[in-house]
Amino acid sequence: MNEEMLVRAAKNFGTPLYIYDLKEIENRIHKVQKTLEGVEHRIFFAFKSNSNFHLLKRMRAFGCGADVVSMSEYKMAKSVGFTSDEMVINGNGKTEDELGIYLKDKVRYINVDSMEEVERFPKNLSARVAIRINPNVDAKTHPHISTGLRENKFGVDMKEASKLIHTLPANLKLVGLHCHIGSQITDVSPFIDTLNSLKLFIDKEDLKLEFLNIGGGWGVDYLHNGTELSTEKYREKIVPLLKKIGIPIHLELGRFIIGPAGYLVTKVLEIKHSSFKNFIAVDASMSTFLRPILYNAHHHIEFLSNGSKILVDVVGRVCESGDTFGKNREVKTPKVGDLGIIYDVGAYGYSMASNYNLSLRPAEVIFDGKDFKLIRRRETFDDLIRL
Amino acid sequence: MNEEMLVRAAKNFGTPLYIYDLKEIENRIHKVQKTLEGVEHRIFFAFKSNSNFHLLKRMRAFGCGADVVSMSEYKMAKSVGFTSDEMVINGNGKTEDELGIYLKDKVRYINVDSMEEVERFPKNLSARVAIRINPNVDAKTHPHISTGLRENKFGVDMKEASKLIHTLPANLKLVGLHCHIGSQITDVSPFIDTLNSLKLFIDKEDLKLEFLNIGGGWGVDYLHNGTELSTEKYREKIVPLLKKIGIPIHLELGRFIIGPAGYLVTKVLEIKHSSFKNFIAVDASMSTFLRPILYNAHHHIEFLSNGSKILVDVVGRVCESGDTFGKNREVKTPKVGDLGIIYDVGAYGYSMASNYNLSLRPAEVIFDGKDFKLIRRRETFDDLIRL
Repeated sequence: MNEEMLVRAAKNFGTPLYIYDLKEIENRIHKVQKTLEGVEHRIFFAFKSNSNFHLLKRMRAFGCGADVVSMSEYKMAKSVGFTSDEMVINGNGKTEDELGIYLKDKVRYINVDSMEEVERFPKNLSARVAIRINPNVDAKTHPHISTGLRENKFGVDMKEASKLIHTLPANLKLVGLHCHIGSQITDVSPFIDTLNSLKLFIDKEDLKLEFLNIGGGWGVDYLHNGTELSTEKYREKIVPLLKKIGIPIHLELGRFIIGPAGYLVTKVLEIKHSSFKNFIAVDASMSTFLRPILYNAHHHIEFLSNGSKILVDVVGRVCESGDTFGKNREVKTPKVGDLGIIYDVGAYGYSMASNYNLSLRPAEVIFDGKDFKLIRRRETFDDLIRL
Repeated sequence: MNEEMLVRAAKNFGTPLYIYDLKEIENRIHKVQKTLEGVEHRIFFAFKSNSNFHLLKRMRAFGCGADVVSMSEYKMAKSVGFTSDEMVINGNGKTEDELGIYLKDKVRYINVDSMEEVERFPKNLSARVAIRINPNVDAKTHPHISTGLRENKFGVDMKEASKLIHTLPANLKLVGLHCHIGSQITDVSPFIDTLNSLKLFIDKEDLKLEFLNIGGGWGVDYLHNGTELSTEKYREKIVPLLKKIGIPIHLELGRFIIGPAGYLVTKVLEIKHSSFKNFIAVDASMSTFLRPILYNAHHHIEFLSNGSKILVDVVGRVCESGDTFGKNREVKTPKVGDLGIIYDVGAYGYSMASNYNLSLRPAEVIFDGKDFKLIRRRETFDDLIRL
């Protein structure tokens, strides 16, 4: 998306503003499909990365299924129009009531997270299940989002999985295996390790499965230096492994599809020069966008300005030192009122926004290559007190 | 609050549930007042710590003023009934429009955060201001909430403060100084350093001030091992310093007043035994309560159970490994459906809650020693899609 369009959007919808580029989303879905060419596969979009109603509608139109982790996400999938057969249920701690609802509705399948969960499945309903296996592979990503180590809360290890398979109640039909080792992985090697051990397990247990769900975790180029997960390497190293496994593959992707298609447009409120540092304060904050403070995540930032280069900390408006979007960044010196763009915020952006400091959650718009459309209005003060 | 009352509340209002004990809040305000006995002082309640409308009404009834950091907090203060004279305005990046509104309304004073902010004050309105001084004192607390170091975004250093004082426009009247070095401070020594340097500054500049605003930062006993900021030591070491400074003192307190008066009641969804760890999954999550994952904050947790002791990780329901409330905690083994209590969540609890994973934000109730009253209803799925 070019500068002119971003300026136009800010003018029409105000700031801070989340913008999603539909063409980019579509391109990225195609990129995944092309990478996996020759392997029968289906993408389930990770609702948790972005659960805007209108965006989800587009995801369905683009051919994605729904990766759902809570009862509200399930309700959202229903209201968006996903059919039961397009839904995969994930997450820990599912309750008996929830499981009953999913089963009555005949969702495609449920990823079972623990031995204990099996006992909570209603006895009188038949279920299609996959077992979430925790392969004890280090995804080498941020500890908060690394899920494949044995000390993580998700899934069961190989030994437990084997036990589970041999003790599944008659009403639970094992249709697949599931594995998700973490997020924002930019190196193919953890995927190789994972697939090798899953292949071994399938062979050893002599499993006849409908599919293998390999989760998501494809990393994006937050640093803007070409460090995105290489789809060439994936095609070279992983696709042959998938072919060898020889059953349809399910993927749960969120960040890789929508992350780089999202832009957070914010306005400069102040350029502060102290004796030790320069600060640019913007009208977004950790309430608008939590990733930088939560994961110490790097997001590329630019200011739409012709000013000379300056070294700054880009900070938000929340009354907390940690409310910082970037430290020691070299940017073009803006003026108060100029726009700043925080890149790659499409995933885990709005979905993690809060009203901290009574900040109003921003508006969201989509861009179809020509026009913008408001897909969530900005909150007002009245929204803060209505509950 | 005793177990029986917590169980009753959960039964009436569901889980997860935030409960605030009004008596405890009142007691803690008295504790502050008693600590400062002999020093003329006023407490301004930090809205950002908890901005529930009904709680804020009580804070005003208890005699607190309003410490406000955003336009929405200002609007909240107005709708709660705080008079302009009871409001102190804080925060970085205040805009010219916002400053105009505050000044027309004649708020008590505005804490000026930078040289640049002074230029944004409307020229045609008179203003009562305090200068936020950054004394470069290490508050020895979590980096996200340590605000008194020179590399933090807040305030100006002594040299800049001096320059500011001598160049203030005629419509800005300097009525005080402001200083807030960080949050959750449990040792008096950073306060001593700060006050000593402020005293030196006031003497050197020969300032005649109406007040000194010393911010907040009083730490609470999150660990439940007696590590709260000692009010005895404060009385012994700090109060004499305040007397020596000899002008009225303003405090901005949030956590110390309301933190320990808040309880998060949650329900056990699963007790999962893996070969390596035990997990208790509860129906609260990082969406309900962010502090553990955001600051790696320790909060005491208990389960209302008679089970034997067990070593567990207490985890939430969000699809993310970091969604953990406590690691390696020894607790009484609960059963599915039993209640767990997360303590000291009154401050920075609900105020930082989000809809991540489409979690519904919980209900909030107050307890007056006898009865519970709902002060914010639980969100529903319809609330998620109304914008």
